[in-house]
Amino acid sequence: MKPRRKQPKQTREALLDAAGVEFSGHGYSGAGLGGIVARAELTKGALFHHFPDKRTLAAAWISERLGLGIEQMWVSPLGDAGSLDGFQNVCRSRCKDLHPEDATSALVAIAAEVASRDEVLADALEQVFKTWRSAVVGLLQRGQAAGWIHRSIQPELEAAFLVSALSGFTVSLKTSVGPETRNAFARALDGYLETLRVQQG
Amino acid sequence: MKPRRKQPKQTREALLDAAGVEFSGHGYSGAGLGGIVARAELTKGALFHHFPDKRTLAAAWISERLGLGIEQMWVSPLGDAGSLDGFQNVCRSRCKDLHPEDATSALVAIAAEVASRDEVLADALEQVFKTWRSAVVGLLQRGQAAGWIHRSIQPELEAAFLVSALSGFTVSLKTSVGPETRNAFARALDGYLETLRVQQG
Repeated sequence: MKPRRKQPKQTREALLDAAGVEFSGHGYSGAGLGGIVARAELTKGALFHHFPDKRTLAAAWISERLGLGIEQMWVSPLGDAGSLDGFQNVCRSRCKDLHPEDATSALVAIAAEVASRDEVLADALEQVFKTWRSAVVGLLQRGQAAGWIHRSIQPELEAAFLVSALSGFTVSLKTSVGPETRNAFARALDGYLETLRVQQG
Repeated sequence: MKPRRKQPKQTREALLDAAGVEFSGHGYSGAGLGGIVARAELTKGALFHHFPDKRTLAAAWISERLGLGIEQMWVSPLGDAGSLDGFQNVCRSRCKDLHPEDATSALVAIAAEVASRDEVLADALEQVFKTWRSAVVGLLQRGQAAGWIHRSIQPELEAAFLVSALSGFTVSLKTSVGPETRNAFARALDGYLETLRVQQG
């Protein structure tokens, strides 16, 4: 461990970077603070200056890093979509490019591991999931107002369903060898989204 | 640790019981063989007699215990369903009674944690997911043959989508406080299943 003369902000970012790699690689329970500071090339003193314990570090990683990932992968593109075709295109792109090392997969993995036994982390995780669901709700409401989402659709219900489906999809990508499950999910998702469309004519 | 004079089969079952509690409570990476043998009130010698390492123990737990859980929670009830209403009823029941300590949640949690970095466990997990998806495929094919599932439905695609949605639902149950997300998912799932129905008249 070589000492570094970093600014506090850089130190904090380096700790979050290292925490992300360790949590993603070993799970929350399996990751140790020793491995995190070693990876960041920092001391435990530097770690404890910024984060009093592993839980606080994990909560910051979830809120900031995974939150940013969900913003970039889902919230922003869904916010830009202005038609059902646009909505489908966002989902098609993500079905193609989601992979086990991205923020969506990491969010689902740490939620599956710890959320039922750690309220602090569950709160941080739920905030990120809520942001993701809200982006879907917003899109569906805009679609209803503009007349391209069926009026009978209840946006909050479909958002909970869609975010769960996409969450489960990240898990299936880890167990399935070959493209069959990815392609099957993507095509069925496309069909499900089609059922939200206002039928013309 | 008190010595036990168990039959080999009982010893093996006690080890799988203990492994399940430890893997569910601490994750695969976080669970130690010491904790597992202590919980089973057995020795490491007894453990290594049955399972050469943690991976082999986990693979057996996945195939046997989680496999049995998925059989009981999904495969068997879906096999008994003989109508779209019956299919919806199975899903409604599971949406009500799924909880973070059951086999479905445990399956998703260990898959999310380890499947992308351990091929042996990924294989064992995929076999269980495949059994679950196959039960959905079988039900949809029977429904098409009997005329209560729409002919345009492709059973393999919908099975991949449904199993992903249900998998993701187990994760959302861990982060969400209160019944809103559970109810929202259940109602949207019901609506999605409705789209598979052959329209009468």
